[in-house]
Amino acid sequence: MLADPLDADVVAAALRAVLRPEQVLSGPAERDAYAHDDAEWADFHRPLAVALPESTPDVAAIVRFAGRAGVPVVARGTGTGLSGGANAVEGSIVVSLERMTRMLDLDVAERVVIAEAGVINDDLRQAVAAEGLWYPPDPASYRISTIGGNVATNAGGICCVKYGVTRDYVLGLTVVLADGEIVRLGRRTAKGATGYDLTALMVGSEGTLGIITEVTLRLLPLGGREERAIVGSFPSLETAGVAVAAIGAAGIIPSALELVDEMCLRAVDEWRSLGLPHDAAALLLATVDEPGETGAGAAASIARLMTDAGALGVEQAASPQEVERLFLARRLAYPALERLGPVLTEDICVPRRAVPEMLGRIRDTAAAHDVVIATIAHAGDGNLHPLIIVAEGDQRAQDRAKDAFDRIVDDCRALGGTVTGEHGVGLLKLSGARLELGYRVIAMHRDIKAALDPQGILNPGKAF
Amino acid sequence: MLADPLDADVVAAALRAVLRPEQVLSGPAERDAYAHDDAEWADFHRPLAVALPESTPDVAAIVRFAGRAGVPVVARGTGTGLSGGANAVEGSIVVSLERMTRMLDLDVAERVVIAEAGVINDDLRQAVAAEGLWYPPDPASYRISTIGGNVATNAGGICCVKYGVTRDYVLGLTVVLADGEIVRLGRRTAKGATGYDLTALMVGSEGTLGIITEVTLRLLPLGGREERAIVGSFPSLETAGVAVAAIGAAGIIPSALELVDEMCLRAVDEWRSLGLPHDAAALLLATVDEPGETGAGAAASIARLMTDAGALGVEQAASPQEVERLFLARRLAYPALERLGPVLTEDICVPRRAVPEMLGRIRDTAAAHDVVIATIAHAGDGNLHPLIIVAEGDQRAQDRAKDAFDRIVDDCRALGGTVTGEHGVGLLKLSGARLELGYRVIAMHRDIKAALDPQGILNPGKAF
Repeated sequence: MLADPLDADVVAAALRAVLRPEQVLSGPAERDAYAHDDAEWADFHRPLAVALPESTPDVAAIVRFAGRAGVPVVARGTGTGLSGGANAVEGSIVVSLERMTRMLDLDVAERVVIAEAGVINDDLRQAVAAEGLWYPPDPASYRISTIGGNVATNAGGICCVKYGVTRDYVLGLTVVLADGEIVRLGRRTAKGATGYDLTALMVGSEGTLGIITEVTLRLLPLGGREERAIVGSFPSLETAGVAVAAIGAAGIIPSALELVDEMCLRAVDEWRSLGLPHDAAALLLATVDEPGETGAGAAASIARLMTDAGALGVEQAASPQEVERLFLARRLAYPALERLGPVLTEDICVPRRAVPEMLGRIRDTAAAHDVVIATIAHAGDGNLHPLIIVAEGDQRAQDRAKDAFDRIVDDCRALGGTVTGEHGVGLLKLSGARLELGYRVIAMHRDIKAALDPQGILNPGKAF
Repeated sequence: MLADPLDADVVAAALRAVLRPEQVLSGPAERDAYAHDDAEWADFHRPLAVALPESTPDVAAIVRFAGRAGVPVVARGTGTGLSGGANAVEGSIVVSLERMTRMLDLDVAERVVIAEAGVINDDLRQAVAAEGLWYPPDPASYRISTIGGNVATNAGGICCVKYGVTRDYVLGLTVVLADGEIVRLGRRTAKGATGYDLTALMVGSEGTLGIITEVTLRLLPLGGREERAIVGSFPSLETAGVAVAAIGAAGIIPSALELVDEMCLRAVDEWRSLGLPHDAAALLLATVDEPGETGAGAAASIARLMTDAGALGVEQAASPQEVERLFLARRLAYPALERLGPVLTEDICVPRRAVPEMLGRIRDTAAAHDVVIATIAHAGDGNLHPLIIVAEGDQRAQDRAKDAFDRIVDDCRALGGTVTGEHGVGLLKLSGARLELGYRVIAMHRDIKAALDPQGILNPGKAF
């Protein structure tokens, strides 16, 4: 870092000399539009400039300039992150990969796709589907988030309970390192054990070790699945938790196992009048996707386990339209809650069996801190999203919300959980992550960061 | 490293003071027994001493002593590695984790097991099977290799084509770092995105970044699978390759897809007289494991695709005994070939479509270098094991074998492959790995190694 921070105009002019002029945004409003991701609750600053690279060499040129000038670089996709990983730090250049949207290769026989980092998850999904292939990871933002951002945060989603997270699909990466050099990590073969798994090290590193510009992903066949939905309403969080545990113990791996609590149900119903059960404390929404009798058998087993656990009612569906209808409450929960005020989104992951206990503690936290908390959960993974809602402009409520957020993180750690299941550490989870990892593992992070980014220009202060 | 290398007696005495005396082997024959893994073709030395820790603190004490004394430490399990990763370097202490065989936790509800590094893969497999759970990774050595060694080399196996490799099952690790500190990496929850994926960085790092003493593994339900085998004999490697490609293109993911070439078939039949087809250039052995009609349909499809590709004959089996019988040629191939002389085992991975081309090049290499090469392949992954066989004591043949080995690695790289699919770099693949990774990625390895092991005492000279 220079002693005298560079002037925004100087930085923009320098970047315009490195790129084409129209690839640099320098107006205050334009810069503010790139100041933070979806985690406004975390700290952010107006960047000095926003660079819009169109190729990997463009990114390399930006990073080389940043290194010479001692200016931090914050990479981002479309800014849908929920932990502040893409929030601009003071005196930084934001590098938005939104223009790098080329699909570089789709190898149908190998079931491998190579895409630039700015490709939207859903665009990639549709492009490979046209060739009979499937890219499973489905973060809630999949219609608007970039594949590069998904990789940089190791995004999860609903399918993870059966199909894993982003990291499970990344075979290789093109990365711009802190010195501006371009490297290809990983491979495109099905297996490989050559050298350290630097691809995995980059996945989820939130732009602190390099800027991901291209990703090589393995794909699955699209066909061969038949989706069936099973939805149960439960009188208590505990009974829903018992059902989750019973499904796991029966050796059934559903393709989705989601929980929506009473607060979400009420918010959705007040908005859309879906006729959702008003006496239910929670809805448990499962899908299975094995074809034929296997899938029908699994669906019947889940329905029975839900009933045995004390469900008030269980509905099943096998047609895509009916599955869609049953999952509507899940899909509408987040937007329904956002109507009520700014939402502070939690993301914790506890052992599956601790889900009911954790849900109880969240309820206690809401009462103790006088905040409204609705919970959506990837219950099958133990990955919970308590959504803390405050009234617009109520500063004291915001402070209480932050306290509740921290208490939930503490409770999660006490139950043997991890402080972020799929959103990443960013800024919001820094203190929780440091407590969870401990000084020696944090020191390993620091040593690796220093080894790969000795100047500390890549998204400093994030991820650990 | 000290200027004057320490005397073996001094090192053994010092280790005996740190551990109990019976935990240190110092006789020349005992030390020679730990001088190398299954890669005798690679360089190895008699270690100064062999330490047999019984706990993580024991390992920490050994590493702290080694650090103070500046003596390299080479960790190993049962020494079944095929790349020399566990070969003792000059003036080193070998740390064998063979006594650390406790199963620390088996959490059935969470489908998670925690085991010490010295637990044998098959012992872990059987222990979890007793609770209805399954640990898929199945390297050929699974009856005798340790789980710690499997993790340190990211071992593969036959199941990988559907179920992935060791790395896909490792949730967390206990590791002794180069300074002797003990860290827990990763988690035991189903999902997690807290900090860098240091667990993945350790997997496959061959003891160069830390010594793995405990592993936390995720498991699958044991039930719900029904194995069916489909075996086709082919008149040429090309037709077998066409069948492999057709199975992939049909969107079928078999639970095994193995290839055994003519040379293997002949060696097995000369040994055991199984009545294997003598007119076949290759046998393709597939299994599918979906239950019921789905599995039956997949098996029928594979049989049809094999026939369409030009198979001389196709056999199917659905009972465990029949599946076992059909796979006998695959299981016996390696021991049958070892009867013919010392075997230099290759391990390359090419894109699936390049399998026939690569098999052809291997045949050309055998002719050009006047060596016998038999090939076993995890064909569904493109992971080939050309086995180069020379006559015992024939030094010139050994030299020709090494040349053939290098040429195969070159050809693999030329076809877009990676120089090791599942055995690791160790020593045998160092030059190939360096060419594949390139100077900048090798520099990243060196920087990370220096960051985590500044003295360079952990298995120096291996892996990259």
